[in-house]
Amino acid sequence: MRWFMTLAYRGAPYHGWQVQPGQETVQGVLEDALATLTRHPVAVTGAGRTDAGVNAHTMVAHFDTDNGIDASAPGFVRGLNSLIGYDIAVYSIVPVRPDAHARFDATERSYRYYATTRKNPFARGLARRCSPSLDFDAMNEAARLLIGRRDFTSFAKLHSDAKTNICDLRRAAWHRVDDDSWYFDIAADRFLRNMVRAVVGTLVEVGRGKMSPGGILEVLDKADRCAAGTSMPAEALYLWSVDYPGEIYI
Amino acid sequence: MRWFMTLAYRGAPYHGWQVQPGQETVQGVLEDALATLTRHPVAVTGAGRTDAGVNAHTMVAHFDTDNGIDASAPGFVRGLNSLIGYDIAVYSIVPVRPDAHARFDATERSYRYYATTRKNPFARGLARRCSPSLDFDAMNEAARLLIGRRDFTSFAKLHSDAKTNICDLRRAAWHRVDDDSWYFDIAADRFLRNMVRAVVGTLVEVGRGKMSPGGILEVLDKADRCAAGTSMPAEALYLWSVDYPGEIYI
Repeated sequence: MRWFMTLAYRGAPYHGWQVQPGQETVQGVLEDALATLTRHPVAVTGAGRTDAGVNAHTMVAHFDTDNGIDASAPGFVRGLNSLIGYDIAVYSIVPVRPDAHARFDATERSYRYYATTRKNPFARGLARRCSPSLDFDAMNEAARLLIGRRDFTSFAKLHSDAKTNICDLRRAAWHRVDDDSWYFDIAADRFLRNMVRAVVGTLVEVGRGKMSPGGILEVLDKADRCAAGTSMPAEALYLWSVDYPGEIYI
Repeated sequence: MRWFMTLAYRGAPYHGWQVQPGQETVQGVLEDALATLTRHPVAVTGAGRTDAGVNAHTMVAHFDTDNGIDASAPGFVRGLNSLIGYDIAVYSIVPVRPDAHARFDATERSYRYYATTRKNPFARGLARRCSPSLDFDAMNEAARLLIGRRDFTSFAKLHSDAKTNICDLRRAAWHRVDDDSWYFDIAADRFLRNMVRAVVGTLVEVGRGKMSPGGILEVLDKADRCAAGTSMPAEALYLWSVDYPGEIYI
């Protein structure tokens, strides 16, 4: 039986999503807990692999169980949550078609990058502190220029194993939360490794007046990672949503 | 010269607001930093004394400087913030009349208590996890009954040195933030020690069906701390605002 689980996690306590020998990872914690509950080995496949330090407001992952186990039962979800600590929360587990795939069936992913423009003891480790003089209008002008089906090689991690660097970017805009805080919402069919943090870093150069909004098109055209701005720290980045077609659920 | 400063702090790293020998307190950190900047001893007087673990979204405090120092200068505020660490943020410092008093001139204080009804890795240490079956309508019915000028002895810490336990409660209501989170907003001319956490604890008993909403009036009438519910943990409590009459500013 195949299941999709929806979960959230803080990035800071883990060495990213993907299992790595000798490191605590989100995938590893989930696989261990599921093996304990089901009494058989369980492989967990996520919608994507968040890097070390990146948070997930919503991650989706699939896994299989044997022996007629009902992983969607409230008791199973409670048991799983009790085994995985405070920094990961599994919200729900639902049955899906046997060939549903958390990574390949995802039609859209979105990320948010949180910024605070003043010292905020409650946002520490959750949002990036930026100068209050950042020009968010200019950043939004540049962000709009990225929307569409484009080659994002300039924003991709070097030596990545992706076969193509074309992404269909559907949303990219900064939104004001209150006087001192903002978030950048970005949605696409897929993202390259490190892409959101490189996009935000480049937008911040626009916001600081070091690059004109139109300059971001030249960065894209160069198809060269060195053309883009510095990658921003992971702690303020959140995988925010993953969408699937309704047909995968049973 | 007398100054009012507006600040925020996380409660967890400190042993409360008030200076205590051998303990790190918010008042102590501020007094040390101000003495360093002004090169003379500085006494800081807060609008109130938050207990160990209680957060401040907004605290107001006064202090005096000699030697023509302009404590409202951006450089002074920046210098202060650089000396007090990440868990306290001073937002602004403004000049006030020489007899203005952060505690005695405050006309209203408000607190918030944050609750989350599901496991949330990002709310840990910032909001209290509660059962999703809590009846917030019943809690609000009980909360409304508290509003007015009343004797809050039942919600006061025993052996407190307060001369009177009469408070003029002006607001008391739970507000929904989203599907899974709520906050309780409570405002009064003054609060007794531990009062908000005892009020919230008693409301939670109403929300769990252990007490009828009207039962809270019987608790008030008894004027006995043992009649109220258990005090709720400090980590989810925030001093939210302190109001002053405009005449104190110069």
